Amino acid sequence: MSGDMVQIFSEFIGTLILILLGGGVCAAVNLNKSKAQNSGWIVIAFGWALAVTIAVYIAGMNGPAHLNPAVTIAMAVDGSFKMSLVLPFIIAQLLGAIVGAVLVWLDYLLHFDATTDKGAILGTFATGPAIRNYPANFITEVIGTFVLVLGLLAFGANKFADGTNVFAVGGLILAIGLSLGGPTGYAINPARDLGPRIAHFFLPMKNKGDSDWAYSWIPIIAPIVGGLLAVGLFHFMK
Amino acid sequence: MSGDMVQIFSEFIGTLILILLGGGVCAAVNLNKSKAQNSGWIVIAFGWALAVTIAVYIAGMNGPAHLNPAVTIAMAVDGSFKMSLVLPFIIAQLLGAIVGAVLVWLDYLLHFDATTDKGAILGTFATGPAIRNYPANFITEVIGTFVLVLGLLAFGANKFADGTNVFAVGGLILAIGLSLGGPTGYAINPARDLGPRIAHFFLPMKNKGDSDWAYSWIPIIAPIVGGLLAVGLFHFMK
Amino acid sequence: MSGDMVQIFSEFIGTLILILLGGGVCAAVNLNKSKAQNSGWIVIAFGWALAVTIAVYIAGMNGPAHLNPAVTIAMAVDGSFKMSLVLPFIIAQLLGAIVGAVLVWLDYLLHFDATTDKGAILGTFATGPAIRNYPANFITEVIGTFVLVLGLLAFGANKFADGTNVFAVGGLILAIGLSLGGPTGYAINPARDLGPRIAHFFLPMKNKGDSDWAYSWIPIIAPIVGGLLAVGLFHFMK
Amino acid sequence: MSGDMVQIFSEFIGTLILILLGGGVCAAVNLNKSKAQNSGWIVIAFGWALAVTIAVYIAGMNGPAHLNPAVTIAMAVDGSFKMSLVLPFIIAQLLGAIVGAVLVWLDYLLHFDATTDKGAILGTFATGPAIRNYPANFITEVIGTFVLVLGLLAFGANKFADGTNVFAVGGLILAIGLSLGGPTGYAINPARDLGPRIAHFFLPMKNKGDSDWAYSWIPIIAPIVGGLLAVGLFHFMK
Repeated sequence: MSGDMVQIFSEFIGTLILILLGGGVCAAVNLNKSKAQNSGWIVIAFGWALAVTIAVYIAGMNGPAHLNPAVTIAMAVDGSFKMSLVLPFIIAQLLGAIVGAVLVWLDYLLHFDATTDKGAILGTFATGPAIRNYPANFITEVIGTFVLVLGLLAFGANKFADGTNVFAVGGLILAIGLSLGGPTGYAINPARDLGPRIAHFFLPMKNKGDSDWAYSWIPIIAPIVGGLLAVGLFHFMK
Repeated sequence: MSGDMVQIFSEFIGTLILILLGGGVCAAVNLNKSKAQNSGWIVIAFGWALAVTIAVYIAGMNGPAHLNPAVTIAMAVDGSFKMSLVLPFIIAQLLGAIVGAVLVWLDYLLHFDATTDKGAILGTFATGPAIRNYPANFITEVIGTFVLVLGLLAFGANKFADGTNVFAVGGLILAIGLSLGGPTGYAINPARDLGPRIAHFFLPMKNKGDSDWAYSWIPIIAPIVGGLLAVGLFHFMK
Repeated sequence: MSGDMVQIFSEFIGTLILILLGGGVCAAVNLNKSKAQNSGWIVIAFGWALAVTIAVYIAGMNGPAHLNPAVTIAMAVDGSFKMSLVLPFIIAQLLGAIVGAVLVWLDYLLHFDATTDKGAILGTFATGPAIRNYPANFITEVIGTFVLVLGLLAFGANKFADGTNVFAVGGLILAIGLSLGGPTGYAINPARDLGPRIAHFFLPMKNKGDSDWAYSWIPIIAPIVGGLLAVGLFHFMK
Repeated sequence: MSGDMVQIFSEFIGTLILILLGGGVCAAVNLNKSKAQNSGWIVIAFGWALAVTIAVYIAGMNGPAHLNPAVTIAMAVDGSFKMSLVLPFIIAQLLGAIVGAVLVWLDYLLHFDATTDKGAILGTFATGPAIRNYPANFITEVIGTFVLVLGLLAFGANKFADGTNVFAVGGLILAIGLSLGGPTGYAINPARDLGPRIAHFFLPMKNKGDSDWAYSWIPIIAPIVGGLLAVGLFHFMK
């Protein structure tokens, strides 16, 4: 494969792993008869933090490991990522997220069957608000992604050892999850939400409810806004 | 911006992020209908540890990342920070803490509305004692900040890789929170307590109680005393 | 000892430590009157993650620290480990796992006596499915080990500092445990399951049930398949 | 101070910090009205792991940071620590542990008063068996300290970056706590148990019971035996 194709394919695989592990921890905690059922927010938050860490290690073999359209767009606007790769990256991320969600479904097949709570099933795929109010939910997702992208830019600016930086990314996701995840479940990534929502829509599951498309625009638009705000502040600070 | 202004502005942003994430985890655990409600002390302690870690990364792009007047004063007395920047740093930290607390309020707006427990709301902003007894509460905050500043000085003295050191700071906050946070909720930082308390006083919240100003001097004075004791011991040890 | 013998002996000791700590955390959480009884999935997942981390440090003094036949086979097929050592490594891993399980039994002797739940006792030694369905359980173990081996190959490809890499391995185990462990308890290692199952079969325990040999082939075959799939993808990505 | 005196004093301060934080987390979880009361084994295990991490950073400015007579004796027998400092180190460790326990008492003064459970109070100072049986309890403490010292020797043999190694020590304590701490509460350190037990004996606490001297020899003798076994195996492996 050419250099660009290798990077794009790595984004696909990385986002696949991100959603396999991130959706996986939602399945582990939400679904009936899982050995980790009801093990709480600390498991969810660590699960997603490590999902990103491991996915960044894997995609990072061959590229920048954005795994998130909001990050890709922010980095392109920042000038540290070439504009021509933005669309291919986003497509790869979205496809990776869909396939990752299908693998979660395969991994927890028996447990999806054993679960009757439609909300628990949807919650294994897509995020949703604890209290529905679109402007407030939008603000929450903007703030979360603002912290994400500002942190990522700061890690790059600090230029520590790469291995340490990967853990810092995990710590950043853990921080956002623990602290800012309470209202909306912290999508902070359009692909993380839309990809699995598409999978939820198409996958056969006997106790499945609707895919809540009415909410789906928030975790697409708000993270992009939050990321761009972070780029602006970062350039003001430097 | 000049070099000093960049540092001061970074203290402002860093303390803002510290309180956004630290106050955020208190909101996540305390407020009604939050997805992380009642997720326990481990979430609080990890949340604050990562809040400091991420804030240090961000402020650390451009400066020493004290984010804490007790640390700034201790470092100035230690001789490793210039005295003329002490007051500007403290003002920046306090303003950052106020704005950070306002962002927590914005992030969890619907959940503040959904919460009627006045203590849970105040606990999202300021610390308070589990058992009120000013001399004993004072000693607890002195000991906590003594460990904080002694640890920070030791990290500097060990001169490990910077990336590792940032994690060590997070580990230090986690240690203090898990071990010494039981009696007073470990302010160990005058800005962390006073800034959000001011925000609590001014912000409109329908179920808000009073801001407990009677206690507010302890998390201001005790951390400064604890920090200075640590500087004294450190110089005796070196 | 010759170089090969030292490596083989280190695999034995490393896998012994892996199972002593990994089986130990299962005992800690499962067995009656343990101070850690019912402390939940977060303890199990961190316990196994650190079991692998510490075992890799110890075995890593003298060798590659596979501690897992599925990893040994994958690395040999990958070409990064010499074929002639595959069988001696697997034997050393299996013997280490048996002795490690005996040490868990010794460590928690009074608690095995105090426990009457046959499932809790077997669960301290071997894995088992939450819902029994061999094809689905097989797929779950394939996916888990696929992520394990892909991650290990990525860590090697990234060539970060060795110390950081050991933690990355721990993070990988934590990720798999939190996210993919719900259905089958994540064996992802033939020696980890078969060794302790053999110990369970032979050790005298008054409340012991049968050793569930009917399930035992899944955590042997599925991890090998998952590891080989990861090697295939890795070579496609590089 | 001379070089030896600085090292000895650092052992005193380091062990003081170790027990202040380690005893502190026991107080946080055990004592009435603590904000962290009943927060579980994960808090205990992380609290002790970080207590050791931070204490090693602080004592490590000026010396080897053993903080544990079983480690000091093992390193002297190993040949990596000079015999003439063994006794001064042990005395410094014991005195540090006593003072650390007094500081825990001071930090949680109001909560000791508010607690009537004699076992909870003693458990904040000294370890005790979940099921009392001296030979079995002895074996458990031998195995725990065997893993501790083997791990420490392996970290030294791997010669990774110092900063990473300090975290590895924390990970080792976390592993032992999570996995092997269930039966006896993992003293694995004569000073950690005897020092606070002496403090418990002398401190005025209105709801205090006896100091269980009958058990006190086990966490003194068993860790020394476990440490020496680890030295033996290490030299066989190298």
